[in-house]
Amino acid sequence: MATVEWVGDGVRLIDQTRLPDREEYVVCRTAAQVAAAIRDMVVRGAPAIGAAAAYGTALAAREGRLAEGVAALRAARPTARDLFWAVELVEQAADPLAEAHRIAAEVVAACRAMGRHGAALLPRRARVVTICNTGALATVDYGTALGVIRAAHEMGREPFVYVMETRPRAQGARLTTWELRRLGIPHRLLVDSAAGLLLRRGMADAAISGADRVCANGDVINKVGTYPLAVLCREHGVPFYVAAPGSTIDRDTLDGDGVVIEERPDDEVTTFAPPGTQAWNPAFDVTPARLVTALVTDRGVVQGALV
Amino acid sequence: MATVEWVGDGVRLIDQTRLPDREEYVVCRTAAQVAAAIRDMVVRGAPAIGAAAAYGTALAAREGRLAEGVAALRAARPTARDLFWAVELVEQAADPLAEAHRIAAEVVAACRAMGRHGAALLPRRARVVTICNTGALATVDYGTALGVIRAAHEMGREPFVYVMETRPRAQGARLTTWELRRLGIPHRLLVDSAAGLLLRRGMADAAISGADRVCANGDVINKVGTYPLAVLCREHGVPFYVAAPGSTIDRDTLDGDGVVIEERPDDEVTTFAPPGTQAWNPAFDVTPARLVTALVTDRGVVQGALV
Repeated sequence: MATVEWVGDGVRLIDQTRLPDREEYVVCRTAAQVAAAIRDMVVRGAPAIGAAAAYGTALAAREGRLAEGVAALRAARPTARDLFWAVELVEQAADPLAEAHRIAAEVVAACRAMGRHGAALLPRRARVVTICNTGALATVDYGTALGVIRAAHEMGREPFVYVMETRPRAQGARLTTWELRRLGIPHRLLVDSAAGLLLRRGMADAAISGADRVCANGDVINKVGTYPLAVLCREHGVPFYVAAPGSTIDRDTLDGDGVVIEERPDDEVTTFAPPGTQAWNPAFDVTPARLVTALVTDRGVVQGALV
Repeated sequence: MATVEWVGDGVRLIDQTRLPDREEYVVCRTAAQVAAAIRDMVVRGAPAIGAAAAYGTALAAREGRLAEGVAALRAARPTARDLFWAVELVEQAADPLAEAHRIAAEVVAACRAMGRHGAALLPRRARVVTICNTGALATVDYGTALGVIRAAHEMGREPFVYVMETRPRAQGARLTTWELRRLGIPHRLLVDSAAGLLLRRGMADAAISGADRVCANGDVINKVGTYPLAVLCREHGVPFYVAAPGSTIDRDTLDGDGVVIEERPDDEVTTFAPPGTQAWNPAFDVTPARLVTALVTDRGVVQGALV
C-alpha cells in the first residue's frame, strides 16, 4: 500500500473515499486531475496532500501550463499548509519532478524522525487517544501522530489506541482502525463525544493529533474535534501532543485566527437527518498553543511559540 | 404525534428507532413488551421512559405478575432515574392505571413549567446549542431542554438552535431536527465535535441539555457528549443549563461517580468501521455540578447542590 506514488506518467493515489470497503487506486496524469483528487478527498491528510500537490505541480510544468495548474492546486483546499509549501517548492525548482520526488521522500523521513522523537514521550503500555487519520494514508508512509504510536509499537512499548471516530467523514473509524489492524496495534473505536468520559475516568495517558497547519505562535489548526479534545486533556492533566513536520508549520501566519477554516458541504453532516436539514460543517478547528503540551516535529520536540 | 399514550388495552409508543424515515407506532400490551421497547430504545428519553414504565407496571399489575413485570422493567436500562421513580410509584398505588395516567400527565405539566422557568434565562434571539433529543419524543409531550426552547419560541423570542448530531444513535440529527422542523424553529445541525469551534467563535449564547439523572450534589448524568459540551461552555463563559423534572432528580445518590453508566453494543459505534472493529460505547457521561450554570426544574431554577 502506497498512498502517493509516482508511476512514470502520473501519480497514483489510493482512493481514500473508498476505504475500508475497497482498496482502489486512481492515477492522475494532469495537474487538474490531482487538484480534483485533493478537492474530492481521494487523497487527504496534510503531508499526503503536500506530496500529491508536489507531483501535481510537476505535471503542470510538464504540460507547459504551470501557472494554470498551480492555480487549480492552490484552490483545491484552503487549510492544509503542506499544499502551499509543496507547490511553491516545485514551482521554483529547476527540475520539478526531481523536486517532487525529494518532497515525497522528505515527508516519509520526517515521519520516521517524528516517530523516534515522539515515542520517547509515551510511557510503556501507554493508552493513547487520537483523532482523525494521521497514519501512512495521511502522509505517503508511516504517519505523523499515528507514526509516533507506530514507532512506540515497533520499539516494543505496547501502546493501546483509543480511536476517535472523527465525524463527519469518519477518518478515524474508516482509516485509522484499518491501518492499526494491518499494523497489529490493539485499539478500540469510540464516538468523538466519548473522549470526555474516557479522560474523566483516567483511561488515557496521552492524546496525540496531527495538524493541518501550525501557526507561528504555536496555535494548531487540525480536524474539527481536536480543540475539544485538547480542552478535555488540560481539564484532566493529560498531555496533549501534536505531531507535525516542518512542511505543516506556517511561520507567516501569526495565530490560528488568521487561518481560513474550510467549511464543507452540508451532506457530510446530514447522514442521519431528515431531507432538507441544513448544517454547519467546519472541517477544522483551532487549538490555542497554551493547550499543546508539546509539538513533535521532525527536528525534535518543542514547546510554545515557534518563532 | 403522541410519544407515550394509553389506548385502552395497552400503551402505544411511536417507534423512535424508525424516525425520521417512518412514523410507526407499536402497542405494548404486557409489561414484558414495554420492557423490551425500553431496552430496544423504541421509547427513549428519561421522562418518556418513566411514563412508559409507569404503564408497564400497570400492565404487570393487571396481568397479576407485578413482581416479575417490575423486575423486567427495572432491568431494561440502568441509567435514567425516571424509570425507577415511575415503577416504584405505580407499584405502591392502590389503582396502578390511574397512577400511570397521573404520572404521564405530571411529565407534561412538568415540561410546560420548565419551559416557562427556562425561557426566562434565554436572551431574545438566543442562539442555543443542544445535544440529543429532549423534545416531545423524549418526554410524552413538549420536552425538557427542547421544551425550554419551544417555550421561548412560543413567547416570540425567536430562538435559533444548533443541534448536535449526538453520535452514536444520532438522536439530535434524527429526532431533534424532525421536531424543530414541525415546530417551525430555525436550526442547523453540526457534528458533536464542532461545538468547540462554535463556542470559540461566539456563535452560541447558551447551551441547554436534558438529564437522565441528577444526583444529590447536582452532578448531571446525561447523553455522552454532554460533559465535553459543559467543559467547553465554561472555557468560553457561555451558560450551560440543564432542564430536568423532579422525577429525574435522585436524592439518594450523592454524586455522579455512584451512577451506573450503561455501555451499549459495539455495533452502534462501528457504523463506518471495518468489520470486526471493537468499540467502547458508553451511552452517558457525568457532568460535575460546578459546570452547570443552573438547573431548570418544574419548580423553578436552582443552582448547586439539591439536598
